[in-house]
Amino acid sequence: MGLGFMARLVVIGGGAAGMAAASRAKRLNKNLDVVVIEKTRYVSFALCGIPYYVGCTVKTLDDLLFYPPEEFTKKRGIRILFETTATKIDVGARKVYYVDKNGREGEIDFDYLVLALGARSKAPKIWPEIREAENAFYISHLHSADEIRSYALHLPRHSKAVLVGAGYVGLELAENLSNLGMKVTLVEATPQVAPRALDPDLAAIVEEHLKSKGVEIIKEAPVKEFKIVDGKAKAIVTDKGEIEGDLFVVGVGIEPNVDLAREAGVKIGETGAIWTDDHMRTNIEGVYAVGDAVEHTDLVTGKRVWRPFAQIANKMGYVAGSNIGGREAVFPGSVGTSTFKTFDMIVARTGLSKAEAERNGFKPVEVKLEAGTRAHYIPGGTRITLKVVADEDTGRLLGAQAVGASETVLWRINVVASLLTTKATVWDLFTSDLGYAPPLAPVWDPLIIAARLLMRKLGEKPRKA
Amino acid sequence: MGLGFMARLVVIGGGAAGMAAASRAKRLNKNLDVVVIEKTRYVSFALCGIPYYVGCTVKTLDDLLFYPPEEFTKKRGIRILFETTATKIDVGARKVYYVDKNGREGEIDFDYLVLALGARSKAPKIWPEIREAENAFYISHLHSADEIRSYALHLPRHSKAVLVGAGYVGLELAENLSNLGMKVTLVEATPQVAPRALDPDLAAIVEEHLKSKGVEIIKEAPVKEFKIVDGKAKAIVTDKGEIEGDLFVVGVGIEPNVDLAREAGVKIGETGAIWTDDHMRTNIEGVYAVGDAVEHTDLVTGKRVWRPFAQIANKMGYVAGSNIGGREAVFPGSVGTSTFKTFDMIVARTGLSKAEAERNGFKPVEVKLEAGTRAHYIPGGTRITLKVVADEDTGRLLGAQAVGASETVLWRINVVASLLTTKATVWDLFTSDLGYAPPLAPVWDPLIIAARLLMRKLGEKPRKA
Repeated sequence: MGLGFMARLVVIGGGAAGMAAASRAKRLNKNLDVVVIEKTRYVSFALCGIPYYVGCTVKTLDDLLFYPPEEFTKKRGIRILFETTATKIDVGARKVYYVDKNGREGEIDFDYLVLALGARSKAPKIWPEIREAENAFYISHLHSADEIRSYALHLPRHSKAVLVGAGYVGLELAENLSNLGMKVTLVEATPQVAPRALDPDLAAIVEEHLKSKGVEIIKEAPVKEFKIVDGKAKAIVTDKGEIEGDLFVVGVGIEPNVDLAREAGVKIGETGAIWTDDHMRTNIEGVYAVGDAVEHTDLVTGKRVWRPFAQIANKMGYVAGSNIGGREAVFPGSVGTSTFKTFDMIVARTGLSKAEAERNGFKPVEVKLEAGTRAHYIPGGTRITLKVVADEDTGRLLGAQAVGASETVLWRINVVASLLTTKATVWDLFTSDLGYAPPLAPVWDPLIIAARLLMRKLGEKPRKA
Repeated sequence: MGLGFMARLVVIGGGAAGMAAASRAKRLNKNLDVVVIEKTRYVSFALCGIPYYVGCTVKTLDDLLFYPPEEFTKKRGIRILFETTATKIDVGARKVYYVDKNGREGEIDFDYLVLALGARSKAPKIWPEIREAENAFYISHLHSADEIRSYALHLPRHSKAVLVGAGYVGLELAENLSNLGMKVTLVEATPQVAPRALDPDLAAIVEEHLKSKGVEIIKEAPVKEFKIVDGKAKAIVTDKGEIEGDLFVVGVGIEPNVDLAREAGVKIGETGAIWTDDHMRTNIEGVYAVGDAVEHTDLVTGKRVWRPFAQIANKMGYVAGSNIGGREAVFPGSVGTSTFKTFDMIVARTGLSKAEAERNGFKPVEVKLEAGTRAHYIPGGTRITLKVVADEDTGRLLGAQAVGASETVLWRINVVASLLTTKATVWDLFTSDLGYAPPLAPVWDPLIIAARLLMRKLGEKPRKA
């Protein structure tokens, strides 16, 4: 191996998950030669920050790096091959083949391999024509943020931004492009915004808020094609007619980057993402996979799911790095918590909706309530609309959704999320000893009221999980 | 019984716990004759709101009522004997004897009895001389709020308020009396503020914040006596010298009102508060007890504790009312969550401190960290200082404390509180799927970092609870 190292770990992909794995393994085992192969000139990047860079809340792309590259190369002793693309993995020969930005090919041996291959936008596959349009964008990496912002900042004020897809990226961009002075139209294929996060009734609250901020929302309008004239997108064609715009951003979902893994014989799971066990080990000895290309177990249903969320990717990286470094760790799975902010509205959900619970064989009961976030006599409190779902047979908590103007919307959902992790019941939620002080919470927190209403619906004596 | 009622429930004490019991029982059983005996002319009052009334955030005392009396008397069909004091309970004859404000005596039969006797300030017992002083106060009921505010508002600006006791009432009053333009001095017997809520190192952060707001803090200064001259308190005498002031408020703790219960043969627990089982039943058939006069079980240690907190009192009332109304319910206990705000500082804690864990036979390990409350690149985030304690032998979470400027300080503690309820481990905390979005939380939440640090300290492979 040279350099006196005992073994080598190669990490393909320098995103947060890959760098977490690299850092953790190196920290636990200084004798490990850790080499990261990264396509771009960035590592440890926060793609979730892109909308805030577009809206100029974040000034420079460097601000979106968790750490500067030197933190890894100088301080942590990790080697990074920047602007280098892994082209093939030979798991038998324990080699990764790559090509650098100048077209020079190379290969590197590994003892351990971590695949941190990430995910990619589905947009260019669905509408290949947008590749030709200088004013139509989708988010593929940090440079996308730069391109969108540069283009938006050169448009006259009140130019029209058309956002295709009203998922969280579309909704975050709606706020940020509005902040740049653009007139924003959201175009969504389904009958509601945030279809993967919220039930229609809670989504309607978000839609009212968006409208109050001047955002136009066109629903049930799947996009058939982009009208491109002279290298510029003029309009999108939908069932609801043509929608013109000056700038288009497509946020219709992503898919896992699994090609390199599949070609190497790494098992792909039922979700289409890379399969691993709870130690983040793939089917091939010494080969781990982490981050947005990897599936995992849903702790509510026990089923395999693909959730390309940053907090999950980071944990996966940490766990893989721990195991490679010789300290056993597991990532048992997630419960499907997600959250976003659009303008002054916070949205959060965890676990299953009632409909999802039914589809997964539960017998769900649901309660919905609107309540204040502080004691009624303290000014400045806001309203939260909360739904909590539980299983009628067992009383087990299954999920929750909430919207409102306070950051505590997320944290109330986080309380439910942490209870889902331990398979808690509505009686455990009722027992949860949430702190009370007038300026901080009502004495009957909305969560405890929800537990009370669920206990009433379940109509039986207290049960423990 | 008259009026066609099948049975009668008498509730002694119309605070939040008593009214919760009365309302819940009546809701479940319309045939129940529900009568509340209340000393004052208020029911369903929020004594926790008193500091905010003093500081004029809350305008009228009526604002501190959860519901106006008519909500109970007209809408819920509950009878209330206002300004009436229960003087004796005969559990054999099933009678309560009382006296009204005009000195008229009466008696009432009961089938069910709920004791919601509340708690009282220890101040007048320790320093009887303050009863004579027009400018020395302690909080006994809503009228105390009126007296303190009236007195404070008639003093010249920058008059000096001396607060004896730096517990949460003292710290909330420090903010509120400052808001009225007073110069505030906190006098505390122990070496730190908030000695029951925080370890000294976190208390020091709160002390720095108080000083930055112009509050003087005199610690290790137990008060020996009040110097009263012509019916006015001039100064308090302490080991650290005499401290003069224009207005004095004593907040040195409360004790449960158990006299009436004890005289009736109701069992008093080891904590000095009324004993009940988890159905809120006392040792006497048909007699329940709820609220600030009642002890309960700590779910971390299994020991009996007395925690006169409003969120606990309300749950006790709800559970007693459910059981009386024929719907079985339990209040298994609490984990000791408490929280308060003073100026721009939020304080929250739950479970055991490291020292408390040691005293309770655990082998605690602790981690402490300071971290941001949002993604590093989003402006407006604040810092949180967090400690989490776990048991070395089992990995079980034992408690947490936090201070910081964000409301999410409380909610991060609430996540730990809910995990304590289910006897979760540090691995459960690590697995907790807390939502992430840049304007709302960092991708590695301080709680998850704490779990990681604890896992490292525990130094073993993952264990489930």
